[in-house]
Amino acid sequence: MKIGLLGFGVVGRGVYDLTAARDDIQVAKVVCLEEVSLPDAEVTKDFQSVLNDETIDTVVEAMGGLHPAYEFVKAAIEAGKNIVTSNKALVATFYDELIPLAKEKGVLFRCTAAVGGGIGWLSELERARRSQTVESVGGIMNGTTNYILDSMTRLGLGYAEALRQAQELGYAEANPTTDVEGIDTWHKVILSSNIAFGISVNPESVPAVGISRITAEDVENFTNNGYICKLVSTGKMEDGKLSAYVQPTLFGRGALEAAVPANYNLITLVGSASGRMSFYGQGAGRYPTAYNVVQDCTDVLSGRGFYSPYGGKVNADNSVCLCYYVRGEMDAWLKENKEADFGTGIVTKPVSVEKMHAWLKAHPEAFAAALDK
Amino acid sequence: MKIGLLGFGVVGRGVYDLTAARDDIQVAKVVCLEEVSLPDAEVTKDFQSVLNDETIDTVVEAMGGLHPAYEFVKAAIEAGKNIVTSNKALVATFYDELIPLAKEKGVLFRCTAAVGGGIGWLSELERARRSQTVESVGGIMNGTTNYILDSMTRLGLGYAEALRQAQELGYAEANPTTDVEGIDTWHKVILSSNIAFGISVNPESVPAVGISRITAEDVENFTNNGYICKLVSTGKMEDGKLSAYVQPTLFGRGALEAAVPANYNLITLVGSASGRMSFYGQGAGRYPTAYNVVQDCTDVLSGRGFYSPYGGKVNADNSVCLCYYVRGEMDAWLKENKEADFGTGIVTKPVSVEKMHAWLKAHPEAFAAALDK
Repeated sequence: MKIGLLGFGVVGRGVYDLTAARDDIQVAKVVCLEEVSLPDAEVTKDFQSVLNDETIDTVVEAMGGLHPAYEFVKAAIEAGKNIVTSNKALVATFYDELIPLAKEKGVLFRCTAAVGGGIGWLSELERARRSQTVESVGGIMNGTTNYILDSMTRLGLGYAEALRQAQELGYAEANPTTDVEGIDTWHKVILSSNIAFGISVNPESVPAVGISRITAEDVENFTNNGYICKLVSTGKMEDGKLSAYVQPTLFGRGALEAAVPANYNLITLVGSASGRMSFYGQGAGRYPTAYNVVQDCTDVLSGRGFYSPYGGKVNADNSVCLCYYVRGEMDAWLKENKEADFGTGIVTKPVSVEKMHAWLKAHPEAFAAALDK
Repeated sequence: MKIGLLGFGVVGRGVYDLTAARDDIQVAKVVCLEEVSLPDAEVTKDFQSVLNDETIDTVVEAMGGLHPAYEFVKAAIEAGKNIVTSNKALVATFYDELIPLAKEKGVLFRCTAAVGGGIGWLSELERARRSQTVESVGGIMNGTTNYILDSMTRLGLGYAEALRQAQELGYAEANPTTDVEGIDTWHKVILSSNIAFGISVNPESVPAVGISRITAEDVENFTNNGYICKLVSTGKMEDGKLSAYVQPTLFGRGALEAAVPANYNLITLVGSASGRMSFYGQGAGRYPTAYNVVQDCTDVLSGRGFYSPYGGKVNADNSVCLCYYVRGEMDAWLKENKEADFGTGIVTKPVSVEKMHAWLKAHPEAFAAALDK
């Protein structure tokens, strides 16, 4: 297999390193803007030269971002190249277009490293769904927010301080919005739901709230009451109806989720025969992520190109009701739905995910976290 | 695929149920001693009739135990049938003979359900090892002992009382020896090490201590000091040297292992590229276990028969040193190796696993648990 590698950042460099000694997978060309000199691969700024190189059968996209990743991947599919990508934003946004196009053109398309980094989550999900019905997917899918919440819980730091430390240690980016506002997790749960249920979820129907509103007082309140807060995604199919959302969630101290430290991920599926299965590991980082890119290349080599049949477009319906911790303005709606006081905030009666997220949009200073059942 | 199913107990019945509606996998014959009437399969007491049936290409062994499972599986391989088994004792004991024989006869051999029940552990391990070096395997591999230890910790029960409750609830067998003395876990870590490192571990070189010596006072002592006790297996390859053993181990309350409740399993590998990955799920039970038998049948259908190349026989070398909690007779060796008092017992300086297990053999009333690093 000869690879055209797009991007030579954290993941791209890792893919190059991990394949350097292999006979079966070879990075033939690297497309990047930096000046790099590599012993075994041609480095070019010209993407077109990958398209025109007939010896390259597979394009590995490790650039990230929507553009020009989308244009490059689409052109590569149209030129008959297999695709392996670690780009969750790309695949979650253009699933509807890229998967059918790849099938039509008879090329293979894999993106295991896009969710869970070093955890082979999408491959496990593919395996699980072939012999049972997957009922739900979700969990802790973002290492940056887990790192921040873990520091706040263990060290009593405020949000800004915990974020700053995460940035200094390289666990958060200079502009942390994608991670802390839950957008990264949002892409990942959309992609996981697509594969679990054989559908294409309309991203706009999936609400996401991140962790930037949380305060040291919220966390202290949780700790005093035996809870630990995590940013959690949910994709659940029940009676043909999909619920899908991203939100902070409170777990009792003995829960598996509560024991996930630092920047680790814990992703769970519930299957009709297997019951609950959870997968724990490094959700990001050069070699863990590159490892799953290489695993995908191995699967492409053996002709395993897709995770699930592609079904139609689906809107999430988030009328499912949960109880929430809420700290914020006690307006009429919140008063009406209050169940009990809870330290610096309250706990609600069961309210729909949809309504809670709508309320949070209208109250940007408030913080809410679902209570794990 | 037409299956000859050996055994119609918990797992066998589950396999029959899960395949009933499938077109690609069909249970054609069931060999069992019970009187059962099935709409879609012939039931017989005569194993020979499976061997003689040329339409049956795959034998699923779900009888358990060494004999006659060994004789049946061997005969089936020699008759050119593929093998899928959930029998850890069989595969751990006869790995050296059955795997080479299957290769020689050109049949496929899978046993994913033998370790981890509903967790596809051996399949995940197979996937992991194809693109990196697996450095270690191990974890909580037995649901019965985890259930007992969990009850003792949460409810303050004594060992005998916790065992009795587990038996009443069906989590422990009437004769619990295989589970509580660590033999089940021993088979599982031998099998996992074989696959992880491409070897055949000499079972006699792997020491195993179970949990039957633990008392309510030990557990209370751990709880008071912030520890939780689990029965844990280890298989680790370092500088070409294998350490492999089974023993109670103490985890700090925040550790992932400490959060594994009831009869769940948590099995971990460390890979050179992926780092740590852990797999959590139902370690036993009809449908979780049968689910992985069916997964193996699917893999056999697509020609995936083995987990790793078969290397030579290896003896474990357990000269690796750990610190232990020990409660027992303070003889000269223990006095010499004492580091500090620890409630009702002591903590040792680093001592070799080999020596600790030898000491425990000579002190059948004593209890020891390694301190997780």
